[in-house]
Amino acid sequence: MARLNDNYLKLKAGYLFPEIGRRVKAFTDANPEAKVIKLGIGDVTQPLAPAIIDAFHKAVDDLTQGDSFMGYGPEQGYEFLIDTLIEKAYKPLGVSLKTSEIFISDGSKCDCANILDIFALDNKVAICDPVYPVYNDTNVMVGRTGEANEKGYYDGLVYLPCTEENGFTPAIPTEKVDIVYLCYPNNPTGTVATKEALKQWVDYALANEAVLFYDAAYEAFITEPGIPRSIYEIEGAEKCAIEFRSFSKTAGFTGVRCALTVVPEALMARTEGGELTSLNKLWNRRQSTKFNGVSYPVQKAAAAVYSDEGWAQIQETIDYYMENARLIREGLQAAGLTVYGGINAPYIWLKTPGGMSSWDFFDKLLSECHVVGTPGSGFGPSGEGFYRLSAFGDRENVIEAVKRIKENLA
Amino acid sequence: MARLNDNYLKLKAGYLFPEIGRRVKAFTDANPEAKVIKLGIGDVTQPLAPAIIDAFHKAVDDLTQGDSFMGYGPEQGYEFLIDTLIEKAYKPLGVSLKTSEIFISDGSKCDCANILDIFALDNKVAICDPVYPVYNDTNVMVGRTGEANEKGYYDGLVYLPCTEENGFTPAIPTEKVDIVYLCYPNNPTGTVATKEALKQWVDYALANEAVLFYDAAYEAFITEPGIPRSIYEIEGAEKCAIEFRSFSKTAGFTGVRCALTVVPEALMARTEGGELTSLNKLWNRRQSTKFNGVSYPVQKAAAAVYSDEGWAQIQETIDYYMENARLIREGLQAAGLTVYGGINAPYIWLKTPGGMSSWDFFDKLLSECHVVGTPGSGFGPSGEGFYRLSAFGDRENVIEAVKRIKENLA
Repeated sequence: MARLNDNYLKLKAGYLFPEIGRRVKAFTDANPEAKVIKLGIGDVTQPLAPAIIDAFHKAVDDLTQGDSFMGYGPEQGYEFLIDTLIEKAYKPLGVSLKTSEIFISDGSKCDCANILDIFALDNKVAICDPVYPVYNDTNVMVGRTGEANEKGYYDGLVYLPCTEENGFTPAIPTEKVDIVYLCYPNNPTGTVATKEALKQWVDYALANEAVLFYDAAYEAFITEPGIPRSIYEIEGAEKCAIEFRSFSKTAGFTGVRCALTVVPEALMARTEGGELTSLNKLWNRRQSTKFNGVSYPVQKAAAAVYSDEGWAQIQETIDYYMENARLIREGLQAAGLTVYGGINAPYIWLKTPGGMSSWDFFDKLLSECHVVGTPGSGFGPSGEGFYRLSAFGDRENVIEAVKRIKENLA
Repeated sequence: MARLNDNYLKLKAGYLFPEIGRRVKAFTDANPEAKVIKLGIGDVTQPLAPAIIDAFHKAVDDLTQGDSFMGYGPEQGYEFLIDTLIEKAYKPLGVSLKTSEIFISDGSKCDCANILDIFALDNKVAICDPVYPVYNDTNVMVGRTGEANEKGYYDGLVYLPCTEENGFTPAIPTEKVDIVYLCYPNNPTGTVATKEALKQWVDYALANEAVLFYDAAYEAFITEPGIPRSIYEIEGAEKCAIEFRSFSKTAGFTGVRCALTVVPEALMARTEGGELTSLNKLWNRRQSTKFNGVSYPVQKAAAAVYSDEGWAQIQETIDYYMENARLIREGLQAAGLTVYGGINAPYIWLKTPGGMSSWDFFDKLLSECHVVGTPGSGFGPSGEGFYRLSAFGDRENVIEAVKRIKENLA
C-alpha cells in the first residue's frame, strides 16, 4: 500500500502567490473592465538586453549543426559560465572561488529548496519572520517540523522576528541552531545587512558549527557603497556559508531560468559519527544524480550578462527598476504611509494604514485601486500589518499605481 | 553543529557516467592521438530539427519586447505545451488526459528523482536489476536503505533481476511492494514490454495499492506495432501509475532540457491514518514550491516537436538512430557476439565474450578499439557480463566502431 508524505498535509492552504492569483482572477472575472496593475509577485517586466538576446540566438544556432551541437552538459554547469562568474561577479568583490565551488542551476528557488537534501533531518533550522515562504515550506515538506500553531509558526523551526522595532534586523539566536537562512537585500522587507551585521552571523556560525544559507538573489540592486554583495566578503564565511544567486532579477531571467549556488570546498558538516566532511562533495553528488544541467543556450545567454555590452545594458534596466522603487517609496511617503526598503532593493515594505490587516489592505487596494501587491502576513506572522510592493513594473504602471493609491488614501 | 545527510555516504564510488568519464580521460591523456568513439552515455549527436530551431528563435525574440516578454511561467508548464501533448502524444494512443495531469520539467532524471519527495519513507520500493542508476541511488540518498552488500544490493530495496534466462523481463514480486520502477523500452537492456506484461503489473499494483513509476523516455524508438508507448494504454493504469517522458532522446533535447511527468488525478495513496489522498495535488504542491517552471523558449521549442513539420523531421532522426542500432546489432552478431535490444530501443545489450567482466570488456574496447560503451555491471549486479552500446552516434562513427570491434574480436 503506497503511502504519501504526510508532512505535505501540514502545509497551510496554497502557497502565497497562487492564493494571490486566485483572488485576482476572482476580481477580474467579476470586473473584466478593470485595468489591474500587478506589483505583487516581483516578476520582471523589461525585455532581455540585446547582448543577451544575441548570445541566446547564437547558441540556438549552435544546435543546428553536428560540429557545434551540444548534448548533455556538465551537471554542474559549463566552465565558460562558471569561470565568467568567478572573474566578473566575485573577483571584483575580493572573493576568490574555484570552478568546482560554483554550481549552475535553473533557479534559486530550486536550489534553496534542494539544498536540504544533503543535511540530516535533525538539524535545528532558523528562518527570519517575515520570510520568503519557500524556506519555511520546504522544511515542513521534508519533515523537520510538527504542525503549525494558530499564529502560523511550525513547531520545530526557530523563527527570528524582523519587526519595525528591530529595524527588520533579526537578532542572533540565543539558542544553538545548525542552519540559518539569511536573505540580503531582503525579500520581503527590502532591508540590507552591513558588513558588521554579517560578521556577527559568520562569527556565530563558526562558533556553533552552523551553516548559513545566504540568499543574495537581489544583490544587483544594492546602490549604497559599502553594503556587501556576497557573504564571502566576510572573513571566514567560506567555512560556514552557502550562497545562492540568480539571474532572474539581475538580468530579467525569470522566464529564462538560470541561477548559481556556491558551496565552498572549505565548508564542512559533521557525519553522525562526528567526522567533518565536505558539503561540496555531497552537493556535487546530489546534482550529478538528481539534475541534468541547465539548457545550453540559457547558459550562453547568462554568460553574456557579464560581457561589457551586456553588463552596461542590464545596469540600465536595474536603474530603471530602482527609479520605480524611488517613485513608489516617495509617492507613498507623500501619501502619509510609513515605508521601508526601496533603496538597495526592488521591494517596498509599507506599513498598512490604521492597523489594517495585510489581507484586508490587499483586498482594499485590489478592489478600490485595482493594484495588486503582496500581503506582508503571507511572508510570516511578523509581516502582519505590512504589504510589499515590487519595483519591477513598467514605469507607466508604477506611476499610475502610485497615483491611484495616493488618491485612495487621501 | 550542522549535520550532513549520512545516507549519501552509503553510495558506492562515483555515479556510473562520471567514472566512465574519468577512465576515458585517463586513456586520452595518455594516448592523445587515439580517435576515441563514444557510444557510452547515450547522448544524442544529431542537430535539432529545423522546425524546432525556428520556434526556439521566435520565442527568444518574444523576450526582446515588453508586450511579448515572458517572465515567470506556471510552475506546471505552459498550457500551449501541455495541451499539445494531450492532443498529439496521448490522444492518438487512446489515452485521455487533463491539463492538470501533465507537469513540464527540465528533465526526467530530475522528475524520477524528485517524485520520491511526495512519498513516505517507509514505502517498500522495487527496482529492476540492471537498472538506470538514478532509481537506486536516489532511494539510497533519501534514506530508504541500509548499506550495500558485497554484490552491490542495498538492504531495504527489492531488486527484480532481469537476466538472459528470463528474457530480461522481471518477474512480478512475490512479496508486497508499494512502489515499482519500470522502464520501457528498457534502459539498459533495450527490451520492451507487451500489453499483456504491462497488464500484469497494473493488476498487481491495483491489487496491492502500489504505485508504478513508468519511465517511457524511449517510447519514440518503438518500431514494432502493438507495443504500448504509454502505461495508460493499459486499463486502470491511471489509478496506479505515474509516467515520465522526455524530449531528450525523442527530439535531441539532452542539452536543451525538457520533459514531462503525468500524475493522473485518479491516482491515490494513503496517509498515515489510512485516508486515500490525491498524489496529483501533492506533486503540484511540490512543483509549485520547489520548482519555477521550464525556460519559456525551451517550452516553445518543445511544442514545435509536435508541429507537422517538426514531427516529420524528428522521425527522420529517429530512423537514422535506429538504422545505427541495426548496424550495431547485426555487425556484432556477425562478429559472433550474443546481442539483445536495438529493435524497439536505441540501446544494444551485448553479452561479453568468454565470460569477461563488464569493466574488463570496457577497458579492452577502450584500449584496443578506442570505443567507449557502458559496462553492464554499472547498472546493477545482474548486468555483470553485459555491455551497453548506444545507437545515438554519427553514422560514420558507428560504422567505424563496429568495424574496429569486429576486427578485434575476429
